[in-house]
Amino acid sequence: MEERIDIQEVVTRDGLQIENQFVSTDQKIDLINKLTASGVNKIETTSFVSPKAVPNLRDASDVMLGVNRHPDVTYTALIPNVYGAKRAVACDVDEVNLVVSVSQTHNWKNVRKNVYESFSEFEDISGMLAGTGVAINGSLATSFGCPFEGKIEDEEVLTLIDRYLELGALGITLADTTGMATPIQVYRLCSKVLDNWPKLPLTLHFHNTRGMGLANVMEAIRAGVYRFDASLGGLGGCPFAPGATGNICTEDLVHMLEFMNYQMSVDLDQLIATSKYLETIVGHEVPGQVIKAGKITDLHAV
Amino acid sequence: MEERIDIQEVVTRDGLQIENQFVSTDQKIDLINKLTASGVNKIETTSFVSPKAVPNLRDASDVMLGVNRHPDVTYTALIPNVYGAKRAVACDVDEVNLVVSVSQTHNWKNVRKNVYESFSEFEDISGMLAGTGVAINGSLATSFGCPFEGKIEDEEVLTLIDRYLELGALGITLADTTGMATPIQVYRLCSKVLDNWPKLPLTLHFHNTRGMGLANVMEAIRAGVYRFDASLGGLGGCPFAPGATGNICTEDLVHMLEFMNYQMSVDLDQLIATSKYLETIVGHEVPGQVIKAGKITDLHAV
Repeated sequence: MEERIDIQEVVTRDGLQIENQFVSTDQKIDLINKLTASGVNKIETTSFVSPKAVPNLRDASDVMLGVNRHPDVTYTALIPNVYGAKRAVACDVDEVNLVVSVSQTHNWKNVRKNVYESFSEFEDISGMLAGTGVAINGSLATSFGCPFEGKIEDEEVLTLIDRYLELGALGITLADTTGMATPIQVYRLCSKVLDNWPKLPLTLHFHNTRGMGLANVMEAIRAGVYRFDASLGGLGGCPFAPGATGNICTEDLVHMLEFMNYQMSVDLDQLIATSKYLETIVGHEVPGQVIKAGKITDLHAV
Repeated sequence: MEERIDIQEVVTRDGLQIENQFVSTDQKIDLINKLTASGVNKIETTSFVSPKAVPNLRDASDVMLGVNRHPDVTYTALIPNVYGAKRAVACDVDEVNLVVSVSQTHNWKNVRKNVYESFSEFEDISGMLAGTGVAINGSLATSFGCPFEGKIEDEEVLTLIDRYLELGALGITLADTTGMATPIQVYRLCSKVLDNWPKLPLTLHFHNTRGMGLANVMEAIRAGVYRFDASLGGLGGCPFAPGATGNICTEDLVHMLEFMNYQMSVDLDQLIATSKYLETIVGHEVPGQVIKAGKITDLHAV
C-alpha cells in the first residue's frame, strides 16, 4: 500500500457546472482560495468550455485569473478544444485536462465528436501547447462502463491511455463518470494500467452514484493508486448521464483515509468548514455525510 | 475470498424502530413476506422489547406469528431480557439475538445496565432457552468505536465474544452501531476474530453514517466474512446515537456484490421493488442509491 494520498478537488468544475443557480465569480474565487488553504494537491479550477454549453462556468478566465495561487497546488482546467486551450494558457494554468469518453456513444453525447475526432483535436492542442510549459492530463470518461453502451473493455482503456501518452500527456485520469465501477473491476483495471506504466501519474475519478465510491477508492489504493479526484460536499455529476448523483465527497474521502493514517497534505477540519460554506453559496444541502454526522472522533457528551 | 454471501435483513427491526409513524402490523407482515420471497437468508423480524421503549415494535408477537415462514429463512428477533425471550419462544422464533455494547457507557445509555449485568441477564436467558431448540446469536454493539467513549480495543471485543460463546451463542455479530469503523480496522478485527474462531458464524453489521459502509463490507469479505446485516432502503440508525444515519442499504449491498459475481440467494430486482414498497409504507424517501440511480445494467436510450 502507498502511504501518501493526493487529494484533487473538482468541485468548482464538476460540482458547480450542473448547479441550477449561477455561483458568482467572487464566491468561486473565495471557494478556491479556501480549498487552497485547506492543503489539497490539485484544483480543477474551472472549464474553458463554451458559455452556451455550461453557462455556470462562463467566468472561467476571471476565476482562473482571480484566485491566489499557491506553489504547492496544481491549478488545472478542463479544455474541450484549441480555443479553450488558448484561453487557459492566457490565464497561466499549470495544466490542461483533456477529456474523451472511452465509449463512442457517450463521447458523441458529450462533445458531438467520435473518439478519433477528439484525439485529432487533442493533437492540435498538444501542438499549440508545445513550449508553453503547460502540462497535459488526459482523462478517460466512462472508463468503467457507459450508461448507453454498457460494458467497457479494459483493453479499450489501455489503448486510449497509449494514445494520450503518445501526444504528450504526463498524467492520466480514469473516470467512472456515472458510478458504474465495482471494487473488483477497479482493482483489476488499475493493476493492468500500473503493470503497463508503473511510473504513470494515475488519477482515479469516482462517482458515488450507487454507493460504491469509497469501496472503489480502497481497491484502487490496493492496486497502487494514490491520486484521487473528489468534490467538496459530494457535489456534482454528469449533465449527460441521466439519474447520476454526485462525485465522491472530498471530506468523506479524507475523513476515511485520515483515520487509517494515510499521509495527506489536506486539513480535514478546514475542508469540513469549507463544505459548510459551500452549502451557503449553492443554497442547498450537499450529499456529504461527515458534514452531517461529524468525524468519528467527535464524541458526544454522556 | 468467500464466493457465497448471506444477506440478513434488519429493516423491520433496526429500520422501523425509529420511524416517526407507526407502520401497521399488516404492512410489517407484508414487508417481511416480500423479503422472504426475495430470498434473503435471515430476517431480524422484530424486537421483543418493552412497548414503552420502542412503541413502533409494540406488535412484535403479532408480527412474528403473522408472517409466512419459509424453511430456508432464519427468523430472528432481538431480545433484551428473559421476559422478551419468553415472548419470542411463544412465537416460535428460530433464533434470539442478544445485544450488549462493548462500551460500558453505550450499554448504560442503551439498556441501563453495565456489561456484566447484561451478561448476567443473558445467562438467565440461555438457561430458559435450554431445550427449546431456539438458537442464540450474540451481538456486540459499538464493536468499532463508541460515540461517547471513542476508541474500542479489539481485545475487549474478543473477550466478550468468549463470554457469548461460553453461554451458548452459536453466532456472533459485530455491530458498527454508529458508523465509526474504517476499512483497515474492519480487516484487522475480523481477521483476529476468525483467527481465534475459524468456524464461527460471524456477521458484520455496518452503518453507512460516514459513507464507509460498502468499503467496510469489502474489507470484511477479504478477511473471510460472508454474512452481512443490511437494511432495505438504508433505513435505520440507533435512537441512542445522536446524528447517526442509516444502516448499509440492502439493495445497494446486493447490487455491488452481484456485479462482482458473488453468489447470493437473493433476487436484486425483487429487493428494489420491495424498497419502493417500503417508501410507500414509511411515507418518505429512503437513503438507498440504487433505487434512485438504477442498476449499472439499466442502460439509457441514446
